[in-house]
Amino acid sequence: MTLFDRSEYLARIQRVKSEMARRGIDLLLVASPANQFWLTGYDGWSFYTPQMVAVSHKAEEPIWVGRKMDAVGAKFTAFLKPENVVPYPDIYVGSTERHPMQFMAEELTRRGWDKGAIGVETDDYYYTAKWDALLKAGLPNAKFADAFLLINWCRMKKSPRELDFMRQAGRIAAEMHRAAFEKAAPGVRQCDVMAEVYRANIAGTADFGGTFPCKPPNAMVGEICSAPHLSWTDEKLVPDDLFYIELGGVRHRYHSPLSRCIYLGKPTERMQRVAKVIAEGLEAVLAAVKPGVVCEEASRARNWRRCGSA
Amino acid sequence: MTLFDRSEYLARIQRVKSEMARRGIDLLLVASPANQFWLTGYDGWSFYTPQMVAVSHKAEEPIWVGRKMDAVGAKFTAFLKPENVVPYPDIYVGSTERHPMQFMAEELTRRGWDKGAIGVETDDYYYTAKWDALLKAGLPNAKFADAFLLINWCRMKKSPRELDFMRQAGRIAAEMHRAAFEKAAPGVRQCDVMAEVYRANIAGTADFGGTFPCKPPNAMVGEICSAPHLSWTDEKLVPDDLFYIELGGVRHRYHSPLSRCIYLGKPTERMQRVAKVIAEGLEAVLAAVKPGVVCEEASRARNWRRCGSA
Repeated sequence: MTLFDRSEYLARIQRVKSEMARRGIDLLLVASPANQFWLTGYDGWSFYTPQMVAVSHKAEEPIWVGRKMDAVGAKFTAFLKPENVVPYPDIYVGSTERHPMQFMAEELTRRGWDKGAIGVETDDYYYTAKWDALLKAGLPNAKFADAFLLINWCRMKKSPRELDFMRQAGRIAAEMHRAAFEKAAPGVRQCDVMAEVYRANIAGTADFGGTFPCKPPNAMVGEICSAPHLSWTDEKLVPDDLFYIELGGVRHRYHSPLSRCIYLGKPTERMQRVAKVIAEGLEAVLAAVKPGVVCEEASRARNWRRCGSA
Repeated sequence: MTLFDRSEYLARIQRVKSEMARRGIDLLLVASPANQFWLTGYDGWSFYTPQMVAVSHKAEEPIWVGRKMDAVGAKFTAFLKPENVVPYPDIYVGSTERHPMQFMAEELTRRGWDKGAIGVETDDYYYTAKWDALLKAGLPNAKFADAFLLINWCRMKKSPRELDFMRQAGRIAAEMHRAAFEKAAPGVRQCDVMAEVYRANIAGTADFGGTFPCKPPNAMVGEICSAPHLSWTDEKLVPDDLFYIELGGVRHRYHSPLSRCIYLGKPTERMQRVAKVIAEGLEAVLAAVKPGVVCEEASRARNWRRCGSA
């Protein structure tokens, strides 16, 4: 029932272990839920209580450590052998006396993984100051190294199956924008347009369904468009409203973001000129993208200031 | 355009300042996006880059510190005076050389807020180990104190307007479950049922729209029900499937959670007995809930083992 073959997970882990070796890291502690998913397949919304994946050179598979009730979900979603799913009991949950990171330190010590250099994702959401303090107190024989984004860089190169999921996510993103375009009209509440966007997000296409996004769409109307990252309201759309929607289609946690504007009227000449500049610039960049090209070069491929001048 | 009156925000801040004084905290640094929203009204999905709210006894209003582009959103959503919205420039974003917490420490020093006891939310997601290390390095004249959950406890007592939003969220939660109940049937994909749940989540009712949830609904079918916190699939429902949905209706970030099961068939006698036990137990607890009663007492109000025995 796992999303990828065991061989694909083991190849990912090998990639991570190589980078660990290059940096002199003996044990990697992974706090990021997205990185845990990529490494093990574990796909529960359970990281509101502390959970971690640990990668050691001493073991083929990582271990997943999390709340006991969530260990059941690992059975359905992770490629790990049962002995590599390590549950902690509920006495550690929401307690002022005990913390799951104390359990984590004890578990690592039991396995003899408490020495050498331990890499941690120092600036990852979820790797809190408290986790860090408790792990350092519980693992006095180790020295800690910053491994923030180590796995994220390993994730950059995608497998064919990952690319399939990203393409499917792209098709879902297009469906979401289509749903917004079809629903938006003067007199319709902004929330009713976004309701259709969400419906399309989850329904996906006839061939494959969608999943929830890692962040909600941003959706701004009128003067609110001058701010990013805000949300829709209950207000009704009016003629000549500009409705800016930034969203991502999602398939199995793989996101394809897509931003588009809907204008409820006849666009002004200036709007049309700006739209033309953006389209030309994007096409010039896309034409320049190929393996080996860095983002800076792609961006230089065409001088954006000259776009739309024809 | 703020959700609450200025007087309500100032009353909340006063409540927080009293608790700070009781604990001997001179400055409170708030990493939690939900706590920032409650204190200031700021409501952007912008905390993927570091942002903080700081509460000092020396100033009536807190300050909000965040990415420059997001400071525009503060104008629309926060009750703060313009001078209390402090943007940092983009050279701090995604940089390996600079970090927003260095800017934060400098800003606090400029204001003379760099001495005494500084409270931080040590175990909040978003208050990372790196933030803590950089703030401690940048504020050498302060001593740090743990203020995790300080604001969350202040949030427990709700204002009439907050209760209105929670009741509206409850009505939306009911709509979401109604949508699932109406759509679920053998032959329908799980994702298509959840698409209707999401549509109802955002569309809300004819009187008020909804907002996105802080976590996606959990939705599990068949044997997957044995695990919590997992998600729907593309599979079609079949007769006698059990579909367990845990969700929250949301109105302006106020959530009302509601869990329900849909059974696609005639429930067995055992199921009916369990349902009866649960309903009786919940009613007994609800009857016992009143001001001054602690959760432990409410839970004891009726011996759950005896429920359903009639």
